Amino acid sequence: MYYYKEELINIIEPDQPDPAAAKVLQETLGGQFGEMRTMMQYFFQSSNFRGKEKQFRDLLRGVFLEEIAHVELVQTTINQLLNGAGESMPGSSGMDNAPIDEAVKHANPHHFIMGAQSALPVDAGGNPWNGSWVYSHGNLISDMLNNVVLESTGVLQKTRIYEMSSNKTFRETLGFLIVRDNAHQNAFAKALEVLGVNWGKLFPVPNYDINKYPECRKYVDMGYHNMQFNFRLDNTRIGEIFQGQSPSRNGGDLTVAQPPMGFPVPQLPEMPNEHSPGLVDMSR
Amino acid sequence: MYYYKEELINIIEPDQPDPAAAKVLQETLGGQFGEMRTMMQYFFQSSNFRGKEKQFRDLLRGVFLEEIAHVELVQTTINQLLNGAGESMPGSSGMDNAPIDEAVKHANPHHFIMGAQSALPVDAGGNPWNGSWVYSHGNLISDMLNNVVLESTGVLQKTRIYEMSSNKTFRETLGFLIVRDNAHQNAFAKALEVLGVNWGKLFPVPNYDINKYPECRKYVDMGYHNMQFNFRLDNTRIGEIFQGQSPSRNGGDLTVAQPPMGFPVPQLPEMPNEHSPGLVDMSR
Amino acid sequence: MYYYKEELINIIEPDQPDPAAAKVLQETLGGQFGEMRTMMQYFFQSSNFRGKEKQFRDLLRGVFLEEIAHVELVQTTINQLLNGAGESMPGSSGMDNAPIDEAVKHANPHHFIMGAQSALPVDAGGNPWNGSWVYSHGNLISDMLNNVVLESTGVLQKTRIYEMSSNKTFRETLGFLIVRDNAHQNAFAKALEVLGVNWGKLFPVPNYDINKYPECRKYVDMGYHNMQFNFRLDNTRIGEIFQGQSPSRNGGDLTVAQPPMGFPVPQLPEMPNEHSPGLVDMSR
Amino acid sequence: MYYYKEELINIIEPDQPDPAAAKVLQETLGGQFGEMRTMMQYFFQSSNFRGKEKQFRDLLRGVFLEEIAHVELVQTTINQLLNGAGESMPGSSGMDNAPIDEAVKHANPHHFIMGAQSALPVDAGGNPWNGSWVYSHGNLISDMLNNVVLESTGVLQKTRIYEMSSNKTFRETLGFLIVRDNAHQNAFAKALEVLGVNWGKLFPVPNYDINKYPECRKYVDMGYHNMQFNFRLDNTRIGEIFQGQSPSRNGGDLTVAQPPMGFPVPQLPEMPNEHSPGLVDMSR
Amino acid sequence: MYYYKEELINIIEPDQPDPAAAKVLQETLGGQFGEMRTMMQYFFQSSNFRGKEKQFRDLLRGVFLEEIAHVELVQTTINQLLNGAGESMPGSSGMDNAPIDEAVKHANPHHFIMGAQSALPVDAGGNPWNGSWVYSHGNLISDMLNNVVLESTGVLQKTRIYEMSSNKTFRETLGFLIVRDNAHQNAFAKALEVLGVNWGKLFPVPNYDINKYPECRKYVDMGYHNMQFNFRLDNTRIGEIFQGQSPSRNGGDLTVAQPPMGFPVPQLPEMPNEHSPGLVDMSR
Amino acid sequence: MYYYKEELINIIEPDQPDPAAAKVLQETLGGQFGEMRTMMQYFFQSSNFRGKEKQFRDLLRGVFLEEIAHVELVQTTINQLLNGAGESMPGSSGMDNAPIDEAVKHANPHHFIMGAQSALPVDAGGNPWNGSWVYSHGNLISDMLNNVVLESTGVLQKTRIYEMSSNKTFRETLGFLIVRDNAHQNAFAKALEVLGVNWGKLFPVPNYDINKYPECRKYVDMGYHNMQFNFRLDNTRIGEIFQGQSPSRNGGDLTVAQPPMGFPVPQLPEMPNEHSPGLVDMSR
Repeated sequence: MYYYKEELINIIEPDQPDPAAAKVLQETLGGQFGEMRTMMQYFFQSSNFRGKEKQFRDLLRGVFLEEIAHVELVQTTINQLLNGAGESMPGSSGMDNAPIDEAVKHANPHHFIMGAQSALPVDAGGNPWNGSWVYSHGNLISDMLNNVVLESTGVLQKTRIYEMSSNKTFRETLGFLIVRDNAHQNAFAKALEVLGVNWGKLFPVPNYDINKYPECRKYVDMGYHNMQFNFRLDNTRIGEIFQGQSPSRNGGDLTVAQPPMGFPVPQLPEMPNEHSPGLVDMSR
Repeated sequence: MYYYKEELINIIEPDQPDPAAAKVLQETLGGQFGEMRTMMQYFFQSSNFRGKEKQFRDLLRGVFLEEIAHVELVQTTINQLLNGAGESMPGSSGMDNAPIDEAVKHANPHHFIMGAQSALPVDAGGNPWNGSWVYSHGNLISDMLNNVVLESTGVLQKTRIYEMSSNKTFRETLGFLIVRDNAHQNAFAKALEVLGVNWGKLFPVPNYDINKYPECRKYVDMGYHNMQFNFRLDNTRIGEIFQGQSPSRNGGDLTVAQPPMGFPVPQLPEMPNEHSPGLVDMSR
Repeated sequence: MYYYKEELINIIEPDQPDPAAAKVLQETLGGQFGEMRTMMQYFFQSSNFRGKEKQFRDLLRGVFLEEIAHVELVQTTINQLLNGAGESMPGSSGMDNAPIDEAVKHANPHHFIMGAQSALPVDAGGNPWNGSWVYSHGNLISDMLNNVVLESTGVLQKTRIYEMSSNKTFRETLGFLIVRDNAHQNAFAKALEVLGVNWGKLFPVPNYDINKYPECRKYVDMGYHNMQFNFRLDNTRIGEIFQGQSPSRNGGDLTVAQPPMGFPVPQLPEMPNEHSPGLVDMSR
Repeated sequence: MYYYKEELINIIEPDQPDPAAAKVLQETLGGQFGEMRTMMQYFFQSSNFRGKEKQFRDLLRGVFLEEIAHVELVQTTINQLLNGAGESMPGSSGMDNAPIDEAVKHANPHHFIMGAQSALPVDAGGNPWNGSWVYSHGNLISDMLNNVVLESTGVLQKTRIYEMSSNKTFRETLGFLIVRDNAHQNAFAKALEVLGVNWGKLFPVPNYDINKYPECRKYVDMGYHNMQFNFRLDNTRIGEIFQGQSPSRNGGDLTVAQPPMGFPVPQLPEMPNEHSPGLVDMSR
Repeated sequence: MYYYKEELINIIEPDQPDPAAAKVLQETLGGQFGEMRTMMQYFFQSSNFRGKEKQFRDLLRGVFLEEIAHVELVQTTINQLLNGAGESMPGSSGMDNAPIDEAVKHANPHHFIMGAQSALPVDAGGNPWNGSWVYSHGNLISDMLNNVVLESTGVLQKTRIYEMSSNKTFRETLGFLIVRDNAHQNAFAKALEVLGVNWGKLFPVPNYDINKYPECRKYVDMGYHNMQFNFRLDNTRIGEIFQGQSPSRNGGDLTVAQPPMGFPVPQLPEMPNEHSPGLVDMSR
Repeated sequence: MYYYKEELINIIEPDQPDPAAAKVLQETLGGQFGEMRTMMQYFFQSSNFRGKEKQFRDLLRGVFLEEIAHVELVQTTINQLLNGAGESMPGSSGMDNAPIDEAVKHANPHHFIMGAQSALPVDAGGNPWNGSWVYSHGNLISDMLNNVVLESTGVLQKTRIYEMSSNKTFRETLGFLIVRDNAHQNAFAKALEVLGVNWGKLFPVPNYDINKYPECRKYVDMGYHNMQFNFRLDNTRIGEIFQGQSPSRNGGDLTVAQPPMGFPVPQLPEMPNEHSPGLVDMSR
């Protein structure tokens, strides 16, 4: 069973609204290599696990638990990027009747039609999340190889999305997730190392220069790329795998650690022009 | 952030394999009105919540947390229904070479091709779970009305799926979930009652006769239809809504309670003919 | 605007339930070349029509109007094939608790889970109807050529589906629709003849032997293959195209005629085990 | 069977082309909560109806019939918004060879590639209409609750789309449909009232201020929000439900009325640069 | 079995990057009427061919073989249009940190997230290529009619896409393909002529004026519209059909010819900011 | 450009019709890890290749070329499994009117409705092939890792599908493809070895026992698991990678070889009851 404390796994850096950035960040939420995919893939792989080598199951479950918090972080980031993006609408008190061009021309229009300027389970092109993306074939090696590809592609895509806006809210979340994806890449690469592979200098994939992503640096300095947070309230054998020398070029030792101190969930203001939450006039 | 203890929210009643039952039970996992939908819908609605009336947000989050455990319960039930369903395969030690007719003719063939006889994020027809099903429009009333429809349809479908096999593993899980869906139906109906609706004798929907579903009775006797389990490690305002007289004909008072005592997660045996987990011969 | 009289365009021939036949007949309702496709394709083509040659628009609209009635006919046929197919279910008064094997093994399980044993907007494989199938490119020639392919494929598929059950309800509806598809094939082939094509002996496509489909014969004898029913309450120029010698080998003259005398819509009984309509016990 | 008179259910207010507005208005045509969905959902619900309480079936059919006219109205509105949007193309007589930037950058490119600048069965994001959206579970209460959600969401989305352009063609159609959706919301809310629900002050959902949508006012003044048009050529029992006090805060009495006087269907000009209809040079 | 020589079937005309043009050109690659569709449709039709009249099979296979080269040509054209479109990114040596607006606002963002600024199997709206588009019903007449529609729609769409940018790389490829689609239209129209149809003045569809598409003229002058290239290393009976008078108004004789002299495949430069190919620093 | 000789890459072993086997073998053709996926993935990766290390591009292209022949082999195998499966149909000369139960109950009904008992671009569950499966991210390492997963999953699925029928036509094709997938697994594993990875004893994945798949043995004896066929008519640098010690436990040296001697393509008989090819009576 699953328990919750209302805290975000990372900070939401304040900045201006940026609906075009919100559109592309959806890839990281609802895309084929986004956080909903990692969350559901490790959920299925851990529930479907066969055999006695439960240290692998605990590794999968451990990463799965963090991914739920990642989904929440990206949802919240998108909400911040959209918040205040379409103020001058007729339903608002301003009443200037100016149409919201941004939503029509450069944003995902569904952010303004379906969501009340909030996150959706879709990718950067507006395609809905799809269950066929989940890979859970039950062969531990092919599952782990697929997980390595998934985490590598996660970093690769995030470094590319990163370049699409200089918005601080956007880049802070991407920077954090790039480093965490690296930790998870290390986790699954290490699992295959346990099974006999020597990765040489292959990882991290892609071979990005940390100096070009300043938001990543502080997390690397904190050792987040070699750390696995432990969200279990009972025992876990994750440490039997996630330990020792990092399988990547960057070096360092893998360690299981407590989750980061949590960050507050920002409160989204009411948005009367979106009829959200729409309770204001209930007393009329 | 999300925490976990490795315990199932209900018991897995042992019985024979039944791959045809596993096929239709997928509706309850990956169908349009299944547990993955409820889980993701309440996740998005709570993350996207606007305004100060956070008792509604806490209600949404509270149900969301239980739905994660429901997903795990249905995954595990499907795995039990499939377990041992295709023993006599050439890759097995038995070596009798008999093809597995069941998988081809009456089961979901993907259970034997993609999964190693295990759960998939698809519905009873094999269609993958789809993000467009998530309803999170940010208007609290339309969101709550949609949630009522979702939980009502959940019960309706489960009473129909229930009739497709007399397998005990299958019916025990369905019986438990029917009663829990009723509790969640009560939760969202009550939220609308708080906003002024009087439901009369409408609920529960559908109007099922508890005497015809013996597996449900014990959970009703335990009061599970009027109870909301609390999985928060911090404070929650859920009790401001989930309290007082039940909005359904059945009566009784709504109460927030501790989660049920957990049940052990069954260990799935290795299945060499599926090459799962496929580690047996690594030492060769 | 659209008006309605509650009458079916053809008779529902009574016979036993046959859920496997219902499954495959869905192709004719919600498949890529089924009646929902023809209905929506001609709807879009007529609404999107450009230019002054409105006799073509009236032809499209005329066929569109009949297709709405075809959709209703196939829905009703599927409902009859499913009706009574799963009687012995626990929710029923019989209470023998026998699971409904047929629904699980040879039928479309969604007919018993989503529908209360009734029609769905899906094809024979359970794939939902999809808007991308509609061809409305606005070039009259390519639109008409596509319509000829659509109607030809409609006949071709129906002659193949026909062979999947000898059920009378099933074959009567298919026989009627095969002949009507031929009439519509003639309509669009004639429109292209007006634009200069001489079809030689190409039509009808496929080149089926009417003697092998006894249900078709009476409709051919009534001249239904050369007739276009007129559902307009105002004037129409359809007769400027649909007239003169048939463009197919079979010969005969094309004529615009009054719609057939309507047939009663069968009343579907309540089905308590499906909780449909579920009002019986509202007074409790 | 279905009959037709070539008249639109509302006026097409003339204004400039606005392809970006056409793109987002597609949500109202081919979106998950658009007019194609309402049309097909009520079609299936009425054809699949079980039992003797046919006043509910007549209510469903009555709304279905109007929805066909709504689909035609939105198709025609989109066509007007697109008409003349891409004049200066090489195939045109103008021959200035300027590329049509608008289609590439701010419009739905399929409007210019598939349609000859005309409507498509897709939503604002370009996703095709999908049959899985149709809810027809055969339990009258869950069906009616779903219909209430569908109509509420219809209004909610239309008030949001309304803000995306100040184009008069666009806003007039949206204003009319907002008021008609309210009438249909009243219809299904009333059906549930008949079954015992007291809605209090919940409706209309969303709680929009009519003064902020000037296009709606004239229709409210005409009483369109409490009226159900009758498109039946035979008897209907719709009035057994659609009568008496409105279930919404706005008050007033529900009445069944004759359809509005029809409006002419605008003729779309030929568009040689789109090769539509493409007959001009047939005589060469 | 299939053999290859690394040569393009047409020249890649150099010009500036144009990511908006790349977005819409995707329709020609991965759209419902694009080159991937024609390639796969003729592949399935030729492999599934029944009966002894193998001259039709050889015609299908002959066109299939050319379509593989067309897919490669469009992939390469899209790559050229994207190449250099997002230079100033943080991962690049330039390091000016300017976000790439173009990708977010007017391009397909997946070109910059999934592809390393390269082609994807999707259409102009970003929808992935779909197998359900392939028409292979095994009736030779309906298959050939569908192929005529497919090639006609191919030309129609390409003349419309042509107008969306004046980029030379873009228009050269479109011009070549318009003429080749005409040749294939002739191929399938001729096959139906063999079966008895006289097309009159119907073709080419659409009835485009060659003088308005200057890029097409040189290919028409070379006779490419009446030529079928032969990619078989063994004998083929294609010439039994593809011969004699063209079935289109334009006249001329159909001839089977050697493939065109090949053109070099441009080398795509490394793109460090996309981490592509990402090998540069492997030696670190 | 692409050239062809009409020869299959492997033999079609004769046996009885087996439509249930044809249904599941579709996974190998149109499934997420089937031959259409490998063919299109390597096609896109080679066309989108960046940089000067063209030995990798030649490797990708080399495998791509063989995959086209694999698609043709599986299409042909499915056609043989279906051929003769529905003889006693009304349209046939036999005229016994027995419905074809098999098609309805245990087969893919689309094989009998869309195909004339022939292959479709769908998977074992009837889901159409989808372009979003193609992975071509342009980072050579992540692309190669994905290819390793793809080939490993290909073998894994084929060993599972193998067990679903003992039909010889079915198992011969699967046996051949299992060994060829292993060769391609070796190709991409070797490419990563070149980049520094040491795989230890990880491959082949899955770790299957060759003695349990007798159809594979003769191909292993011929060295097919360590061979890459060369379909280039010009030079290729594939041998710079595909050489030296196999990266898998099985050992042996990798060699580039001539394609196998081709096998004849079986001629499919006419099937009058499917109206295929439907030309028989054209002369009437």
